[in-house]
Amino acid sequence: MDNKEEVKWEAFNRILEILQSENIYDFREHFLDMHPYDQALFFMEVEKKDRMLIYGYLSPEEVAAMMEHIGLEDIQPFFTEMDTNYASMVFAEMSTDDAVDILNEMEKEKVVSFLTIMNKADAEDIKDLLHYEEKTAGSIMTTEFISVNKMQTVKDTMNQLKEEAPDAETIYYLYVVDGDKRLVGVLSLRDLIIADDHTTIESIMNEKVFHVSVAENQEDVAKSMRDYDFLAVPVVDFQQHLLGIITVDDILDVMEEEASEDYSRLAGISDGDSKDTNPLIAAKKRLPWLIILLFLGLLTASLIGQFEETLNQVTILSIFIPLIGGMAGNTGTQALAVAVRGLATGEYGDSGKLKLILREAGTGLITGTVCGLIITVIIFLWQDNIYLGILIGLSIMLTLVVATLAGSFIPLLMDRFRIDPAVASGPFITTINDIISVLIYFGLATTFMRLLL
Amino acid sequence: MDNKEEVKWEAFNRILEILQSENIYDFREHFLDMHPYDQALFFMEVEKKDRMLIYGYLSPEEVAAMMEHIGLEDIQPFFTEMDTNYASMVFAEMSTDDAVDILNEMEKEKVVSFLTIMNKADAEDIKDLLHYEEKTAGSIMTTEFISVNKMQTVKDTMNQLKEEAPDAETIYYLYVVDGDKRLVGVLSLRDLIIADDHTTIESIMNEKVFHVSVAENQEDVAKSMRDYDFLAVPVVDFQQHLLGIITVDDILDVMEEEASEDYSRLAGISDGDSKDTNPLIAAKKRLPWLIILLFLGLLTASLIGQFEETLNQVTILSIFIPLIGGMAGNTGTQALAVAVRGLATGEYGDSGKLKLILREAGTGLITGTVCGLIITVIIFLWQDNIYLGILIGLSIMLTLVVATLAGSFIPLLMDRFRIDPAVASGPFITTINDIISVLIYFGLATTFMRLLL
Repeated sequence: MDNKEEVKWEAFNRILEILQSENIYDFREHFLDMHPYDQALFFMEVEKKDRMLIYGYLSPEEVAAMMEHIGLEDIQPFFTEMDTNYASMVFAEMSTDDAVDILNEMEKEKVVSFLTIMNKADAEDIKDLLHYEEKTAGSIMTTEFISVNKMQTVKDTMNQLKEEAPDAETIYYLYVVDGDKRLVGVLSLRDLIIADDHTTIESIMNEKVFHVSVAENQEDVAKSMRDYDFLAVPVVDFQQHLLGIITVDDILDVMEEEASEDYSRLAGISDGDSKDTNPLIAAKKRLPWLIILLFLGLLTASLIGQFEETLNQVTILSIFIPLIGGMAGNTGTQALAVAVRGLATGEYGDSGKLKLILREAGTGLITGTVCGLIITVIIFLWQDNIYLGILIGLSIMLTLVVATLAGSFIPLLMDRFRIDPAVASGPFITTINDIISVLIYFGLATTFMRLLL
Repeated sequence: MDNKEEVKWEAFNRILEILQSENIYDFREHFLDMHPYDQALFFMEVEKKDRMLIYGYLSPEEVAAMMEHIGLEDIQPFFTEMDTNYASMVFAEMSTDDAVDILNEMEKEKVVSFLTIMNKADAEDIKDLLHYEEKTAGSIMTTEFISVNKMQTVKDTMNQLKEEAPDAETIYYLYVVDGDKRLVGVLSLRDLIIADDHTTIESIMNEKVFHVSVAENQEDVAKSMRDYDFLAVPVVDFQQHLLGIITVDDILDVMEEEASEDYSRLAGISDGDSKDTNPLIAAKKRLPWLIILLFLGLLTASLIGQFEETLNQVTILSIFIPLIGGMAGNTGTQALAVAVRGLATGEYGDSGKLKLILREAGTGLITGTVCGLIITVIIFLWQDNIYLGILIGLSIMLTLVVATLAGSFIPLLMDRFRIDPAVASGPFITTINDIISVLIYFGLATTFMRLLL
């Protein structure tokens, strides 16, 4: 733990003492002086009885600011332990998009009771967003943006800004709409500031406004914002009506979420595994994968069983099984990772995919030849049997070519059928390649048996 | 390819025709109408002779805006093919941080010649940044920020803004310094806009300004910006002098880079592998790993060789080698990924690490027992040999416990010794666990040999 962290935890201990001595005034002074993210860290660290005190000492607005920094996977219990009235006031004060994310994970009845208690306008905003499918632009957008009519003057707009700024997610882009609320332009605050007071918005706005459709995938939105360096993008429906905006802070979370998901899949675990300290829950998440792999492993065993006669005649063959299988698994995972990342960053067009397959075939041929030659020499020197050396070398070579191709071909195939290629996890490819390698190895061994005896 | 993409490529073809017909006026109109990111896509797609035309038709400033959207791995050749004078003008017009990133990868002599041609002020800015170590806050910060003196009034500051806005990376945060250029506060543009014209900056600034040190790791900076939802953070030296700022668009790139790095390491590939279409280069990048793993595989083979007598007596043992090794590899990769992600997101304190190890031990015990029982029953039914079933089942159980522990322990150990745990890649853990599993399996088999015969 570095120094910065230590200082933070010391401060936490001091504030906890103040809280437990039930000194409201002092607590509010120290607690509200922290950044909401640090408030959230503190809040999640203390026990339930301390949290109940906190709910009493802070306004719903103050709690809402803090709640926006608590991860979705941890937040539900806090809303359940609060008084229902208080909870619905907290929801009303949160950014609509964050409130909706939490409500989306709750039971229907609870959501209805929160919305019933809430004031009508806030409840409407939330209800509108609750309909959007998970992981679409609609589900991460917020409705707290500033829109201006194209006929307004710069001066009027500045006055509007001063009024609406406190509630908006961002004031750095102003979205310009026509009389029908259709998005017709965008204006950065920078443009507004350097403009003359009496010009109209229409004459200084940028008509080429980048926007996303409400149904667009959140990963694609993230990619656009990264590529084009936007701090916010407007979200429109199919008639170009402005529905909301997505800000860059939400995109940082989306990117973290997607990267974490890809990484977890490559390792064959469910995402979010790391948070629980309960081994039963962790085991339950990992077992499905392990059991599937167990059966695939049994398939491999029964395949090798078909070659029992070969094995009986040349026992030495069996000691190289893990070597060949391991190489197949490793090279397959490498090829898989390259293909999945390439697909995720949108590098390939249709011709690019063919190029990728060709390149991987070439790569497999080169790595296979090099590794095959090395192993042939080593085994010849070690076992003093040139035929065994050639057999193993040839098996490694063929295995590496086929495994490399499989590693790149399977994700491309999945992508073609619109399955997210990231679900073709490392363990899956590894096990498939294990089976392929066994077939190649024992197939060759059985064919050339008389040379080995 | 979706519809949006198709439209884009059609537009590209039209613009290429205009370019090749050497119609400057038309080309500039169509080309400059695109977002610089799209300009960059077009630019990278065309041939050298077309690019030479583009350099002639655009100003260094226009080329600079486009260059900021080309990835570091692709950009160097473009600067080399331009006229040197023109190239140095382009560098001068780019954001200092982006220019420095490119120059950092170039040969020393070339850098010196660019800096000599450039005007003095721009060259100084770049030289200052060239000293910072890669992947630190210093290396990703820009010096084009707006700083205001704490004694200024709001009105003066607004006027300063109008003047400096065009050149600054962001105007949404203003950093407040004292007479010695030390950072003393921060002011968002939002605060400035709603403030009264005649108040001083000091009275409305926020004194609690979050900042990072110039030597801080870029990954830590990214984490802070994500946690605290900042659009920019100031960078200071050890005496608190304001040196530069880091903006969120650079952080998006850092996050993408770090996620891609972790993912690639889990798969045992060098990052950036996917870009090349040359199989020789790809093979060269993957071979080091594969050869190390080849030797580890040979170690496994020689270990199994030690048990040749056991194998000769009970050949059937060999068909389960891939099953047991594969399960060890899979469970180890799962545990590894959980530990690496947990460490990356800074979830664990010292007590958290112990908790993780204990949890993984528990998880291994549960998954091991379940998988062990399943396999015992299946092998008993299949091979009609209860002792063989128990042997394999027990081996799986022990292997899963040990492999799970190894998968979480090794990255934690590396973190302790300040080695980035992400380098403990999947293939490495898989191979280590392969060896462990062989020892457990054949150790048990040899010990209980008389029951198997």
